Amino acid sequence: MATLKDIARECGVSVATVSNILNGKPKVSEATRERVLAVVERTGYRPNFFAQGMRKQKTNIIGIIAEDLNEFSTTPIVEAIMDYCENHGYRTILMNLRMYYKWGDTWYDDDAKLQEQLKPVISEMLSVKVDGIAYVAGHCRVVNAFPENFRVPGIVVYGLSKSPRFSSVVIDDERGGYEMTRYLCDRGHRRIGLICGEEGNIHTTKRLAGYKRALVEAGIPVCEELIRPGAWTRELAGMSADELMKAGVTAIFCMNDVMAGGVYDYLSEKGLEAGSDLSVVGYDNRIFAEYLKPKLTTDEIPFGAIGYQAARELVMTVDKEEPGNPRIIEIPCDIRVRDSVSDLR
Amino acid sequence: MATLKDIARECGVSVATVSNILNGKPKVSEATRERVLAVVERTGYRPNFFAQGMRKQKTNIIGIIAEDLNEFSTTPIVEAIMDYCENHGYRTILMNLRMYYKWGDTWYDDDAKLQEQLKPVISEMLSVKVDGIAYVAGHCRVVNAFPENFRVPGIVVYGLSKSPRFSSVVIDDERGGYEMTRYLCDRGHRRIGLICGEEGNIHTTKRLAGYKRALVEAGIPVCEELIRPGAWTRELAGMSADELMKAGVTAIFCMNDVMAGGVYDYLSEKGLEAGSDLSVVGYDNRIFAEYLKPKLTTDEIPFGAIGYQAARELVMTVDKEEPGNPRIIEIPCDIRVRDSVSDLR
Repeated sequence: MATLKDIARECGVSVATVSNILNGKPKVSEATRERVLAVVERTGYRPNFFAQGMRKQKTNIIGIIAEDLNEFSTTPIVEAIMDYCENHGYRTILMNLRMYYKWGDTWYDDDAKLQEQLKPVISEMLSVKVDGIAYVAGHCRVVNAFPENFRVPGIVVYGLSKSPRFSSVVIDDERGGYEMTRYLCDRGHRRIGLICGEEGNIHTTKRLAGYKRALVEAGIPVCEELIRPGAWTRELAGMSADELMKAGVTAIFCMNDVMAGGVYDYLSEKGLEAGSDLSVVGYDNRIFAEYLKPKLTTDEIPFGAIGYQAARELVMTVDKEEPGNPRIIEIPCDIRVRDSVSDLR
Repeated sequence: MATLKDIARECGVSVATVSNILNGKPKVSEATRERVLAVVERTGYRPNFFAQGMRKQKTNIIGIIAEDLNEFSTTPIVEAIMDYCENHGYRTILMNLRMYYKWGDTWYDDDAKLQEQLKPVISEMLSVKVDGIAYVAGHCRVVNAFPENFRVPGIVVYGLSKSPRFSSVVIDDERGGYEMTRYLCDRGHRRIGLICGEEGNIHTTKRLAGYKRALVEAGIPVCEELIRPGAWTRELAGMSADELMKAGVTAIFCMNDVMAGGVYDYLSEKGLEAGSDLSVVGYDNRIFAEYLKPKLTTDEIPFGAIGYQAARELVMTVDKEEPGNPRIIEIPCDIRVRDSVSDLR
């Protein structure tokens, strides 16, 4: 691999200049900066941030960046990270980007909006000299949380790091989709409708793959007619439920509880009942799942375990002061069996 | 009012010693400290922290301390505080005491548990030299958030400051109880049951007072038999609903939505329906209120307005660099009319 010296020689600048550029210090012309970064990228040079880490004083502070604290998944993850850190001799500082608060749902594919919020927060974390950063996404997707040449250990939680240099902790959505579908098959259902989240979303794609795998395994042909859109919303799910009922399903698997609520709405309008007239299952185990009548069978996302695993991975990297192997950790979900599925066997 | 000099003279110590004691610096014997603090308390002396503030450099950082971020009321308040601060040139730092996470519901009356978490957090805020602190309580009660001689402007949000030197922002629970009861009276209900939260709790006491005022105003005698305990829980509320039904009520006002859920459970077990067979209203406007069937009429707590008002009050105090008049700001709630009340007129 190229060294700092190689890059400096090729660009005709000093080693100090290359180092300054990689560490984001000013006082270098934009032209030089671009030329050096191009060479850095081509040669695949990676700054040895862990060697730098060993030279600097450890602060025993872990930074936590949340995309939005008000998202239902976020605070249980954050509290588990804080708990783990506290029990392992690290303090935490917490920053909140408030992406949903500022942008509603218009920012998912807009990296510029994210970076505008993120950059000053990252600078602040660096000025505090955090030993590591846990980045908690508001929903699962590939996140540009840390730049490729970032010097501090980081982990992306409830999302996937765009840079392969950083580990990620996500739920095992494929397995979740598989297990829930299998649960329905095991109870004698063979025409099982699926109401999907937004298209292209990772949760959607993986749960769909799991649904198909379970059907194939049970010897049930996958029927595209039974796979309907819901876009995570209550209203659209009700419309899809109508189509699915007409297509003769005995059960509907909704990719979140909000859409299961929409199916309940639809059934109630038709004078039908969830459970007895149509089996319904959800995903997320939101608080309201226990207030639906009948109580909703759903997949619980173990936010505590997600936060715990993420903090563990990050603290291990920080403690060892060596990069380890960046990896994607997938946490399984747990089916919470309640009263919304009838047994056809 | 007594000056530092008066107190120093009376105690036979130097002004510097009194100042050190008030600023919490060590190196003073416990006996001297106690003697001086006794005189400070008797004379009603208040350190002029704003004069000290004018001498120090402003950092334009507001500290936010949350008792528990995972409590449903907390993150919308915190996000509103952050929004206001950002729009007025202040950055924020956020600390989370995680009281519910650590202690469940066993810490409400245990100031020692609170102080153990709070003290290091306050120290950290002071080391960052925050210009002011917003303390966000997890539930309403009198909170020992800031010591009497604290030098930094502070405000207690969603709770009442124990020290009268600091302002508080709470909801207007008396008015909330009054308006909801009046709403039921206006629709022809005259036997209105009340299921209360935990006894002694401020929400409980004030909503009860509002309930009584509305009844008296409507010429309906207050009947103690119709006021039942629920302790904020779904299970106990169901039991109280049974007693109230036997006492012939046409409507039940539950002091939170969770207990309204318990009344729905009870009705469903008896083959009865909320709305038509018994009117039910809640409080809080939790997400699940819209998933109950029929949808629950309830009082919405305007968390955004609470956070906004609190930040506004705090920033004004910080900007003016003078104490202003500490006060209790009460924010009204808004009834969200849905489908769980029948009109008997």
